[in-house]
Amino acid sequence: MALSYLDELISALRCLPGVGPKSAQRMAYHLLQRDRKGALHLATSLERAAENVQHCSRCNNFSELPVCGLCASAARDESLLCVVEMPADQLMIEQTQCFRGMYYVLMGRLSPLDGIGAKELQLDNLVRRVQQHPCEVILATNFTVEGDATAHYLATLLQSLGVKVSRIARGLPVGGELEQVDSGTLAQAVLERREL
Amino acid sequence: MALSYLDELISALRCLPGVGPKSAQRMAYHLLQRDRKGALHLATSLERAAENVQHCSRCNNFSELPVCGLCASAARDESLLCVVEMPADQLMIEQTQCFRGMYYVLMGRLSPLDGIGAKELQLDNLVRRVQQHPCEVILATNFTVEGDATAHYLATLLQSLGVKVSRIARGLPVGGELEQVDSGTLAQAVLERREL
Repeated sequence: MALSYLDELISALRCLPGVGPKSAQRMAYHLLQRDRKGALHLATSLERAAENVQHCSRCNNFSELPVCGLCASAARDESLLCVVEMPADQLMIEQTQCFRGMYYVLMGRLSPLDGIGAKELQLDNLVRRVQQHPCEVILATNFTVEGDATAHYLATLLQSLGVKVSRIARGLPVGGELEQVDSGTLAQAVLERREL
Repeated sequence: MALSYLDELISALRCLPGVGPKSAQRMAYHLLQRDRKGALHLATSLERAAENVQHCSRCNNFSELPVCGLCASAARDESLLCVVEMPADQLMIEQTQCFRGMYYVLMGRLSPLDGIGAKELQLDNLVRRVQQHPCEVILATNFTVEGDATAHYLATLLQSLGVKVSRIARGLPVGGELEQVDSGTLAQAVLERREL
């Protein structure tokens, strides 16, 4: 009863985040039963991506080229550098079309409990980037405990280099009503009020 | 900004059941960021499984051989055939070590809402199996609406061939207390009481 290839597939699927033994089994059965073409396509895509996708040497985002399209673009403002946690965050900011500067993607956040410190995030790459291309830095990490801690750490680090550092604003969402917003956000919106 | 290999991987991951756009993105980032070896191993496993795992010609379970080890075994009782929905169900029964007969794995259940009828389940294979090797059939499909419907359908079908058909018992679990069991199970346990 040793189904080695099937067992191997089930255990290999567990390298996906959030996939435990039960879902790995369900996925393997589904692929073999209903979607062998999808399985083969996924295999090819995994191989191609794992072998070809590297990090942009400037912004640290995923890229197939040594320097990604955005960093190579002449239309961007080099005097502004927006620091985000993940590629998805950068995409979100790009979609707003409000920012024409450069990005730096941390590929994570400081999280001592998960063993991710300044060294694991390779923050010296960011420091080098800022030293080579002096610019104003906008910290756009998440407003979570870890994102805030990362922003705080980066602010101290970069200010010591004489760089102007800002943090994206926290407050009520556009269209937000005081009655419905959570009290933490409302408290921050009051604390960080802007003079008119 | 076209990251074709990354985008392709994200869309390919969506062939996995229960994986939407957000989790596909998270999985792709995780693999590229932290587990490229895992990604390549998964690719190989997918290919090998998709190309080598077939169905056993007797029990319909996944198998790399035309006839799986269990069906080829001389130690099993050919006069008993246990019908289950999925390979995992068969494994569970094997683990109890209470059954030494043969199996037939439906690879699904009747589910008209999902377009799965008698034809999609290829029930004629089961009928042929029973006609070639006459035996007593034990229906061990799940006690869900669909599993029950499948058992009912199979019972009618097989009894018309003159086969003796039974259904695994429903009732209180071993160690179960009346106070804690749901009323549906308790009602069934009373209805299906056994004479002592």
